[in-house]
Amino acid sequence: MEESKYGALGVSASKSGLHRALDQSGLTPSGALFAQVSADLAGNSEYYSFVHCDGAGTKTIVPYLHFRETKSRSLFSGLAQDALVMNLDDIYCIGSPEKLLLANTVARNARLIDDETLAVLFDSYRALASTLAAQGILIELAGGETADCGDVVRTLVVDAVLCGRIKKSSIVDAGNIVPGDVIVGLSSTGQAIYENMPNSGIGSNGLTLARHAMLSREYAKDYPEVVDPNLSPDDVYRGPFFTTDRPEGLEMSVGEALASPTRTYAPVIARVLDTLGSSVHGIIHVTGGGQTKVLRFGRGNIYIKDNLFAPPPVFSLIQRFGHVAWREMYQVFNMGHRMEFYLPEEFAATVFEISSSFGIDARIIGRVERNNEAAASNKVTIECPYGSFDYTL
Amino acid sequence: MEESKYGALGVSASKSGLHRALDQSGLTPSGALFAQVSADLAGNSEYYSFVHCDGAGTKTIVPYLHFRETKSRSLFSGLAQDALVMNLDDIYCIGSPEKLLLANTVARNARLIDDETLAVLFDSYRALASTLAAQGILIELAGGETADCGDVVRTLVVDAVLCGRIKKSSIVDAGNIVPGDVIVGLSSTGQAIYENMPNSGIGSNGLTLARHAMLSREYAKDYPEVVDPNLSPDDVYRGPFFTTDRPEGLEMSVGEALASPTRTYAPVIARVLDTLGSSVHGIIHVTGGGQTKVLRFGRGNIYIKDNLFAPPPVFSLIQRFGHVAWREMYQVFNMGHRMEFYLPEEFAATVFEISSSFGIDARIIGRVERNNEAAASNKVTIECPYGSFDYTL
Repeated sequence: MEESKYGALGVSASKSGLHRALDQSGLTPSGALFAQVSADLAGNSEYYSFVHCDGAGTKTIVPYLHFRETKSRSLFSGLAQDALVMNLDDIYCIGSPEKLLLANTVARNARLIDDETLAVLFDSYRALASTLAAQGILIELAGGETADCGDVVRTLVVDAVLCGRIKKSSIVDAGNIVPGDVIVGLSSTGQAIYENMPNSGIGSNGLTLARHAMLSREYAKDYPEVVDPNLSPDDVYRGPFFTTDRPEGLEMSVGEALASPTRTYAPVIARVLDTLGSSVHGIIHVTGGGQTKVLRFGRGNIYIKDNLFAPPPVFSLIQRFGHVAWREMYQVFNMGHRMEFYLPEEFAATVFEISSSFGIDARIIGRVERNNEAAASNKVTIECPYGSFDYTL
Repeated sequence: MEESKYGALGVSASKSGLHRALDQSGLTPSGALFAQVSADLAGNSEYYSFVHCDGAGTKTIVPYLHFRETKSRSLFSGLAQDALVMNLDDIYCIGSPEKLLLANTVARNARLIDDETLAVLFDSYRALASTLAAQGILIELAGGETADCGDVVRTLVVDAVLCGRIKKSSIVDAGNIVPGDVIVGLSSTGQAIYENMPNSGIGSNGLTLARHAMLSREYAKDYPEVVDPNLSPDDVYRGPFFTTDRPEGLEMSVGEALASPTRTYAPVIARVLDTLGSSVHGIIHVTGGGQTKVLRFGRGNIYIKDNLFAPPPVFSLIQRFGHVAWREMYQVFNMGHRMEFYLPEEFAATVFEISSSFGIDARIIGRVERNNEAAASNKVTIECPYGSFDYTL
């Protein structure tokens, strides 16, 4: 990966090394389920229990820089949504769970991140739980932990945990994706009815690449705490923008675009599963690995993605100013849709209708064919105006 | 706190600011329970569910420095125990839960912490689950998340999550601690029958203070990634030791002492509760806040601790080389016992017997009296060879 832009920044998009380390320890996900499940804690054989952890990653740096520059804490609130939704939408890929418990963790440099900022974060978790409750998604705030550890954390780490139970009979197992399925993608941009502003589509993946492509070198100079000193100075913060800039076509500031809170698709998924049940063969959350995420699911499939959404402006800017190869862009970012349904074509219209009722665009972005070259392995083929790209594990 | 050694290092031992931020958001612990609980996820009114997060904090730096110095990854494995036990022992303070699910999270600078190190960590979680299972404590490994985020994390963050269920009828509510109770402390040193080496007693609290007091300035010079550059150079790594040094009286190396894996008392607590049930009025895990941790529990009590264990050698060294006031030492570190039972004196002998059967020393370290000065607030009084110290919230 070292030749890639992302590899040069110390991040492995494919996490291949990591998967090896995990394989050695037996902590791998179970089967082809998108999120790991365990035997039910309450001992009911009709249920699984699960506990899921994820977080906002290096996205925390964007609100931090915006705060240092403008004294406004406004962008911090989105981090709670990032941490929560990165968990929530992974879980909904295996189906609709029952009530969830949320715990949040913060690791901070207390000299740089004050208690008022934490209060913004915690308030945001509460507000989000209330917004989701109105959509029938019940999340109880179940505590958290804040660690002051400036010798380890340069600025801020925001993570969340969701645990809960899910009925076995309602599980969506992405191992059931088969040739003949179409792929319906749900747009990562626009404004859902349960959102209070338009979303840039960025999500919470690829932020290391995005920040260094877009944001000005001045930041590395003025705020050395936002950069890993092990990185080559040529690679870091080499963009033209400050968080308050509004480049043409973006329709929001650069700070707002890079910190745009990760959209949840949980209300859409819940209704689709209520309506279509096991006709949905798989649901894939386009996170680390971008549009190649599905490679780990199914067996002997070619995922042909030839009708993608046009890349949202934030990704076009990252590509342009980061000089990132388009092939890599699709491997790191969602590029326009962050949630995928795999199902027979006859059911696609139902997904469109439900998604549209929530104010979210959907379209058939591709289809599944049999991989005649290698029966055991999967392949993703992307055909887009920028080229035709093949990916395997 | 700024006048304290710990405050100067950017850590608030009392977390008073933090508690204010939390109070604003309603994410405070419920009542006087040591760990927060929620309504049962399975809907059984006889149970609570809970999800608990904690981690190894800045203790991760010790194995890291040892590795850089010696190329040995041996000390990393203890971090899994630190992260797990910081959760486990908090939970056992409210009683014996049923089977637990463990998720682990790692945030790393992938340039400095490689996959082989992660494999050591993950193997250690597995080994620990197996050791605990032999003691009747069932923990299922339920997944995890590793984030490469060098722009945010200088070296390594190791956190863990435990979720599970506990029967309401078996809950230990520290609000029941009353005047007349004695305080039985369980030693943080020695070697329990389920441990494979002697423990220094350090636990996972106060490591920022401990590292800077004990470890050599050379580390800050050679490995700037282990120090927050916002700290005054006069305050950091101002000790005389390298991790491989073996100062007289310590009986292990400095690295082994500072990275000594946090002991779990869960097997002892489980058996004590099996035997004594609700005769145990409260159980306090001596973590952040050190020997003053109990201040938040009970009402109108004076906690008189006048028969403490002698401070283990690691704490005497930290005090001496860090020039830390003894008053602060007891506020930051466990100083010899990391678990406390509050119960009528007649039951103390049963705790001694059980603790001893696990190879852990126990003694009556103090007692609870009524606070006649202020009926609503608690006070901790420590009487030791180094002085008499009073603490209030």
